Order: sequence, then structure tokens, then C-alpha cells
Amino acid sequence: MMWPATPRCGRAGLEAALPIFADRAMSKPLYYLEDLHVGQRFKSGTHTLDAAQIKAFAAQYDPQPFHMDEKAAESTSLFKGLAASGWHTAAITMRLMVDGGLPLAGGIIGSGGELSWPVPTRAGDILQVENEVLEITPSRSRPDRGRVIVLARTTNQRGETVQTLRAKLIMPRRSSP
Amino acid sequence: MMWPATPRCGRAGLEAALPIFADRAMSKPLYYLEDLHVGQRFKSGTHTLDAAQIKAFAAQYDPQPFHMDEKAAESTSLFKGLAASGWHTAAITMRLMVDGGLPLAGGIIGSGGELSWPVPTRAGDILQVENEVLEITPSRSRPDRGRVIVLARTTNQRGETVQTLRAKLIMPRRSSP
Repeated sequence: MMWPATPRCGRAGLEAALPIFADRAMSKPLYYLEDLHVGQRFKSGTHTLDAAQIKAFAAQYDPQPFHMDEKAAESTSLFKGLAASGWHTAAITMRLMVDGGLPLAGGIIGSGGELSWPVPTRAGDILQVENEVLEITPSRSRPDRGRVIVLARTTNQRGETVQTLRAKLIMPRRSSP
Repeated sequence: MMWPATPRCGRAGLEAALPIFADRAMSKPLYYLEDLHVGQRFKSGTHTLDAAQIKAFAAQYDPQPFHMDEKAAESTSLFKGLAASGWHTAAITMRLMVDGGLPLAGGIIGSGGELSWPVPTRAGDILQVENEVLEITPSRSRPDRGRVIVLARTTNQRGETVQTLRAKLIMPRRSSP
């Protein structure tokens, strides 16, 4: 399901166990654990990457020649041209999720996950994230929360997958059972 | 093994299949696939995190209240205080590895990995990374390279593990067999 016009449950923000994003809750439906089902999908907006962004991130967090300089990047047998740091792709993916790509009550709080970068991210790429709910597990010890596993697939404008992230998220339940 | 005074092989940079970091190779020993063994360890320098860095990263890539504002963070049941974005911890970990924490010939090029954030990263934390070589697999199809799996454990000044990353890296062989 993509961006429903109305929430599946109408009580968002009222009986919230962890009403962190009250302001967001007023403008958009936010999903609690009970509102999710396996196979559910959410799509983000887009972000356009350019060489300046790639180099700025790399200068701070991943200063290797193939992320910093077009000429040096040309000569690396793996990248054959300027490529974004994988951590930059991951950070942009997170921003797209926070900006509405994954509208969870309580925010997006991860305990970890599995990452892969099958194709380099390049200057000019228009990135978008599609999230799919894989698993939903209410906590046994904490009735106010549960764990959700989401597969976040980040694609470029050609439909190539530049990153997959199988994320383990902790999120609130709407009310205690 | 930590930072050997001399490289295990003395030909660094001369017969390199992918001599990307010629300047680095002159000052420090760089490891090729053949120079690594399972169980080998490398330790990084340190990075001290403060609230301004946490908020600056979050403003750009993970703008959620618990990464942006001390007061909002106090009221989140999970973090109970300002916490760095996990992606910020990952990015700092990468920087520590690039700055000498994992001195690989060809640079540090990952195809993915498994991440976990068992403990939040906080303002005031002094972060350090210890890398351990878990697996070494020469490529069957490409004699000039191979895959290495490294466990990168990021700790704070109290010895608590704030991140583990089981990273899949692609790296050059010293020479073709």
C-alpha cells in the first residue's frame, strides 16, 4: 500500500504509547505496529545526487580517491568513475525514509540490519526508496512496543538497485494489549 | 596483529595490481590479500564526538528529534537523551578505518555487510574501531582480487560496543598466481 489518503486506524496520536512526533501526526497518518501488515509497501520521495554532494560527504567521512576526484576514480578498476561512498547512499536513504518514506509513529529507530550495495551510486542519480514490511513481532517483555523488519530498496532513475537494507526497527504499539 | 613496524611482505606498492594509494603506500605498510590471515587485528585512532557534530549530521541525513534536540530526546523511552544517528556512527567508523584503522592496498571498498547498534552513541563519546579478519577468499574468476570479511567493532571510552559491522570487502592481490 502506498501513502493511503486516510489512516487504517483513525486514532493516530491520541492513544499513542510513544507520541514523539505529535506535529507530524497532525499532518500525515503515522503507522503503529498494529497498523502494519507483512507485504505492505511505502515509497519515498526522490533525491538528486551531484558530484559536489558526493565529494563533500567523502571529504568528511570516507576520503578515498574514488569518492573524491573524477580523475583518480577513472583509474580504479572497480568503480571506473566517481562513485558515492556507500555510507552516503545509506545516509540519503535514511533521509528519504525520515522525510515520509516510512511514516512510523515513534520515528525510525533501528537496531541494525543487513546492507548491500550492488551498483555504485553516481553523480546525476535520482534516488528513491521503497520499503516493504517483512516481519512484525510484538515484544513479549514490553507490551508498548515491537520489532519490525523492513526491506528498504534504494533505486536510481534507471530502476537499478543501488542499495538494499534489511532493517530491524523498534516501534511503538498503539495501545497495550 | 596491531600495526606492525614492518610489513609482512616487503614489496608493497611495487608489484601492486591496483596501486591506488601510491602516496599512502610510501608512508605506511599496506596489506594485500596475501598479507592477511584469519584472526589478524587492526586498531584505529580515536574520534571524539560532541553534540554539535551529532546535530549537524542529523540535520542533513536523519532529522529526528532524538538526534537533534536534547529536550526532545529526554522524553523518548528508548534513548533517554541525545543520541547520534546510527548512520553517523557508521560514517565515523568508516573515517577511522580510512585514516589508518584498516590499511588495505586498494582502499576500503565494501559490497555490503551486517550492522548492529547495541548501545547508543552519545555526545562526549571517544570512538575507536578494532577490525578483525574473519574470512579471506581469493576470487575464482578474477586472479587480481579477492573478498575479505572483516568484523569492525566500534567502542566508546568505557569499552562498550556501540556498533558492530561485519563488512564484505573487495581487495587486490599482490600479484596474479
